[in-house]
Amino acid sequence: MSVQQLEQFRETIRNQLDRTVDFWLKYSHDTQYGGFFTCLGRDGQVYDELKYVWLQGRQVWMYCRLYRTVPRFHREDILQAAKAGGAFLRKHARVSNSSGQWKCAFCLTRDGRAVKVQRTIFSECFYILALDELSRVTGDKDMQVEAEQVMAQLVHWVQVDPSGLGRPTLPGDTPTSSMAVPMMLLCLVQQLSEARGPQEALKYQSVGQWCVQQILRHVQRGGTAVLESVSADGQELKGCQGRLQNPGHALEAGWFLLQHAAQWGPQDLQDTAITQFIKQPFHRGWDKEHGGLFYFLDVDGLCPTQLEWSMKLWWPHCEALVAFLMAYTQTRRPELLESFTQVYNYTFKHFPDEQSGEWFGYLAQDGKVALDFKGGPFKGFFHVPRCLLMCENLLDQLLQEDGAGAGPGPI
Amino acid sequence: MSVQQLEQFRETIRNQLDRTVDFWLKYSHDTQYGGFFTCLGRDGQVYDELKYVWLQGRQVWMYCRLYRTVPRFHREDILQAAKAGGAFLRKHARVSNSSGQWKCAFCLTRDGRAVKVQRTIFSECFYILALDELSRVTGDKDMQVEAEQVMAQLVHWVQVDPSGLGRPTLPGDTPTSSMAVPMMLLCLVQQLSEARGPQEALKYQSVGQWCVQQILRHVQRGGTAVLESVSADGQELKGCQGRLQNPGHALEAGWFLLQHAAQWGPQDLQDTAITQFIKQPFHRGWDKEHGGLFYFLDVDGLCPTQLEWSMKLWWPHCEALVAFLMAYTQTRRPELLESFTQVYNYTFKHFPDEQSGEWFGYLAQDGKVALDFKGGPFKGFFHVPRCLLMCENLLDQLLQEDGAGAGPGPI
Repeated sequence: MSVQQLEQFRETIRNQLDRTVDFWLKYSHDTQYGGFFTCLGRDGQVYDELKYVWLQGRQVWMYCRLYRTVPRFHREDILQAAKAGGAFLRKHARVSNSSGQWKCAFCLTRDGRAVKVQRTIFSECFYILALDELSRVTGDKDMQVEAEQVMAQLVHWVQVDPSGLGRPTLPGDTPTSSMAVPMMLLCLVQQLSEARGPQEALKYQSVGQWCVQQILRHVQRGGTAVLESVSADGQELKGCQGRLQNPGHALEAGWFLLQHAAQWGPQDLQDTAITQFIKQPFHRGWDKEHGGLFYFLDVDGLCPTQLEWSMKLWWPHCEALVAFLMAYTQTRRPELLESFTQVYNYTFKHFPDEQSGEWFGYLAQDGKVALDFKGGPFKGFFHVPRCLLMCENLLDQLLQEDGAGAGPGPI
Repeated sequence: MSVQQLEQFRETIRNQLDRTVDFWLKYSHDTQYGGFFTCLGRDGQVYDELKYVWLQGRQVWMYCRLYRTVPRFHREDILQAAKAGGAFLRKHARVSNSSGQWKCAFCLTRDGRAVKVQRTIFSECFYILALDELSRVTGDKDMQVEAEQVMAQLVHWVQVDPSGLGRPTLPGDTPTSSMAVPMMLLCLVQQLSEARGPQEALKYQSVGQWCVQQILRHVQRGGTAVLESVSADGQELKGCQGRLQNPGHALEAGWFLLQHAAQWGPQDLQDTAITQFIKQPFHRGWDKEHGGLFYFLDVDGLCPTQLEWSMKLWWPHCEALVAFLMAYTQTRRPELLESFTQVYNYTFKHFPDEQSGEWFGYLAQDGKVALDFKGGPFKGFFHVPRCLLMCENLLDQLLQEDGAGAGPGPI
């Protein structure tokens, strides 16, 4: 592959990132109550005012990350929007129940009243992401301390006692391990310890190692498949739940493992991440007929029971782009750049909306747009800009190394 | 339309009903633990052993209804299967919590241990349907009493105090009325009072009238639209939730209202049912490009946020067949039989599986099979046979009246 090709990738990606940031700056800010509208139609119109805490937290994180690390986004309007989002979250996201225990809500009204609380850890995860990154931008130590306190609560729920999540104990409901949980915790470990010195890194080292071990237990069937859920002791579960595969999640876990391996080793973790979490799920999950990644699969080739299993969602393609480009940057194996190119071609042909900006999120199996909004209950300012930012950075690195003659041969 | 055409409809429908009954008798019985497997693949293979209480209750009800009302299904194997299903339900479906309150589980393991409990009334609804119909077949008075006791509990939860359902009260979660609730209660009123004499009918008369009033509050926008959810005081809700339409539910409510109107009047309820719950949702919900009924719509024509909104599911087509044929039988308006024929042609072209029997449940927007199983967590032995049985009965009635010269003109 030529340097010119990589430069073309970078040009498109940088352009898409600028357009995406513009879209959310223009349409998503609630200047009356703070926080962000995330239900945005094709042209940016607000079609629902509910505020989903996952998406509020992700948008604060993303704005801060752009402000802090990318000179062209070091802009006052981005900083102010992030602060307003953070203030809304700190004021409204936590909900206490009658026993004095708290959870982060899943969904709030426009003015911040709780509508729904989930019995999982994910609202808290994105609350932590937001507060930690915002504290880095503002220097607010209280905020950093709060992020660490919530993290301690999460680790307690996950590793010690889940009763605070509020799930009833039922005799047929055997404890299971969903890959999303250790994957998100590993993401938080990387966030909280990033560039904070060896003491802070050491503080989260054992949690990070636990997450890696938990993620690796999802490799099943003699190493040939990543399964989304396994039993608490790492065995395959019975039925549909046990056979479910989510290629996008496997690919996302793959690049979290690559980041972990680059920092801590060992070398074989990089190999595992590339072979079992990136290449295998990609080849299994790719639709040979229409292209694109399936949303869900059954490891035995049966029909999944999720109605949307064959749809092509934007975020698994985002994760695949990051995973292959990171894997290539770390190893320079040409087939990884070829797979990146394959995903790139499908993604940029189908998802971006040339007319109104941003990306469509949901395609039918054949690649036609099935839902035409730009933001919804689960699509906000996160996967698209995170992917574009990470790919831009990786391409900068590749082109710089090549330009300096530091690469191990031709790109 | 000719008598021959109606006879052809009846012939196909009768044949499909026989094939459907055969399929479930052959593949779904768990002779070891009792109850029914409902996750059945295209050829009947069990791909998951979980037992969903909605589907267990529905299958008991359907077997009993066939046994009790159709001479060719008055068979010992059907009776025994219904009894075994009823015994499994009575032994396992009710789950008590630590405060001594009970709910019916949503899902059980193969051997009957609770996996999940929903905070809605629907598991209880199908438990009542099963027990009442089974008590009619077996003459078991205890069973009938239990059905009535559970019904009293449901009415209490819905009309007086929902706290027993276990939903936390949240400040932004304003009480809403989902059309499914009064629709299912009206179904139960009709079940519990059917052919039990005036005293029993009187017992449920006020609940029935309350259900009708509640259902009618879902007619919004000056009578031009049925909305799936409204506020507790009958106003349109904000956002996506308020704009959501489910054409299949409206059509189903339509024929429950027709049944109610035929028994109790008034005359204008029949007109409302036909105009607002059957014709309008059908014309709005029909896909002009590919045919078939959409699963969800937004009343303002925006894109729904449900990923599966444009899919064609089997059950809305079942409800449309029953609704139009019942409306035609009651009124003899030719356009209703034309709409029945339109739905009939789409349905019998796309859903039945000539190769392995039974119907596919889930088609993509263009009519291709998207999920190829015959039973799943929400598709059991219910909508297909209930529709076929009701249509067979209605066609019998039409052909008999016509043969006797009793009809108000040509069919």
